[in-house]
Amino acid sequence: MKFLEKLLAASKKNNSLLCVGLDPEPVRFPPSYLGKAAEQSVVRFCHDIIEATAPYVCAFKPNIAFFEVLGARGMDVFQEVIAAIPEYIPVIVDAKRGDISNSAGNYACALFHAYGCDAVTVNPYMGHDSVAPFLAYHDKGVFLLCRTSNPGARDFQDLKVQSEDGQVRPLYQVVAQQVQTWNAADNCGLVVGATYPEELSTIRELCPTLPILIPGVGAQGGDLEAAVAAGVDAQGERAIISVSRAILYAGDGEDYAITAGKEAAALRNRINRGRIHDASGVNPTSGIA
Amino acid sequence: MKFLEKLLAASKKNNSLLCVGLDPEPVRFPPSYLGKAAEQSVVRFCHDIIEATAPYVCAFKPNIAFFEVLGARGMDVFQEVIAAIPEYIPVIVDAKRGDISNSAGNYACALFHAYGCDAVTVNPYMGHDSVAPFLAYHDKGVFLLCRTSNPGARDFQDLKVQSEDGQVRPLYQVVAQQVQTWNAADNCGLVVGATYPEELSTIRELCPTLPILIPGVGAQGGDLEAAVAAGVDAQGERAIISVSRAILYAGDGEDYAITAGKEAAALRNRINRGRIHDASGVNPTSGIA
Repeated sequence: MKFLEKLLAASKKNNSLLCVGLDPEPVRFPPSYLGKAAEQSVVRFCHDIIEATAPYVCAFKPNIAFFEVLGARGMDVFQEVIAAIPEYIPVIVDAKRGDISNSAGNYACALFHAYGCDAVTVNPYMGHDSVAPFLAYHDKGVFLLCRTSNPGARDFQDLKVQSEDGQVRPLYQVVAQQVQTWNAADNCGLVVGATYPEELSTIRELCPTLPILIPGVGAQGGDLEAAVAAGVDAQGERAIISVSRAILYAGDGEDYAITAGKEAAALRNRINRGRIHDASGVNPTSGIA
Repeated sequence: MKFLEKLLAASKKNNSLLCVGLDPEPVRFPPSYLGKAAEQSVVRFCHDIIEATAPYVCAFKPNIAFFEVLGARGMDVFQEVIAAIPEYIPVIVDAKRGDISNSAGNYACALFHAYGCDAVTVNPYMGHDSVAPFLAYHDKGVFLLCRTSNPGARDFQDLKVQSEDGQVRPLYQVVAQQVQTWNAADNCGLVVGATYPEELSTIRELCPTLPILIPGVGAQGGDLEAAVAAGVDAQGERAIISVSRAILYAGDGEDYAITAGKEAAALRNRINRGRIHDASGVNPTSGIA
């Protein structure tokens, strides 16, 4: 099954555009974890979060940096964590890789083949031939960084670029347009921060059918409703609203998993209220509890 | 000791600007490796290459993608390989990471602290706050991708950008100028491909004192002499000419390590012939065998 089909199927089954970002930080775990090995803690914490939130998500997005920081054992932990994700829910590994063909091929092989992830985030700065080895996996998704959610995004992504047609556009729009031309196998997506709903809206116009991964809601301050309205396609789909800390650490006691599940359900429902009703009469809000 | 001091000391000791890139590809190993586990093969191959080439280099540059492709055991292999590098020679891990502060901090901690690398390559696309967690390690080096050696580099890095001062410059020059302003702790560097000696020359003018990591000689077709002439600073230093495949796979028989050592020595000497004599009378070519 192609990534996009898997995403849309999970989104439909759970009536959700919510993606839970798995960014485990042992220092923020509940007190009962004190004294345990970080590796064990991360596996248990993530398993509990996955179990509690899975019914409310369209995808999980583990950020591989939080596993690499555990050292050589971190990749075992990563494997154990993603093995707990239900088979029907896609795993988007947030790795932000980007290198020339030879090395990019190794990254793609590691993430798609060795670890079995369904999609990956990739940095576009090195251009098409650095992305092609990822795109060669037609059944996998490749989300290119476009306009990111952090303050430093403006350093380069907002620079005004002269196009050959005489137009002047911000760099992130040129990236969006290029990615659209790389989408021959229908496996491209974009990463656009929720902190910039106007930019998100422009990108959605430029790329009406690409799935857009939207981090930056919650801890980073993005406006959820504005992000949903700007990010969804004409059918109210293909926006993936990624929330990490605001769900993972919603509670700080032993009931953290229950609290995370409740928070995920509430966010799923808030997102759905912002989705439009499509022409076929499907009401994306029907699943609200 | 700061990274730059360590680099210059190793460069002086071995009279070299050559960096050997450790990109182990088991399918290209000599026939005696057939049937062995990839992990064992990679460790032995890299150890032999390091031993044979160490006297002729200023740095080693393992590309972490070639270790990640081995799966969860790949990071053990990576640790074993870098442990074999003599203490006085800096390890520049080619990881091309780049993420927001929280995740970038984890990448920096993993590469600098858990694995003990001396420097890292970082992608600038996400801007200053994505690079700051790496720069916070004042004793470590941070090489920002600027103008890379691959054909796709032109997709974005060459785009003409309007600056606030009304000037129009290619994006890679804006990146070089920005990185210069990030260099408060004297720990920044740039990555510029040898395949573009004119661009390299312009970047050297913009950033007269930054160390420049220069891949792309050899298998990628860059002209060695032109790259050296364009890349060195006014003292004939601070260019790091990185060569991988042309050294690692110079021989394909059981004498591959001896052949690699000879090739490294020859390249070191060719590079030195291209370095200028500085005003103090130091002759960088004195070490030519």
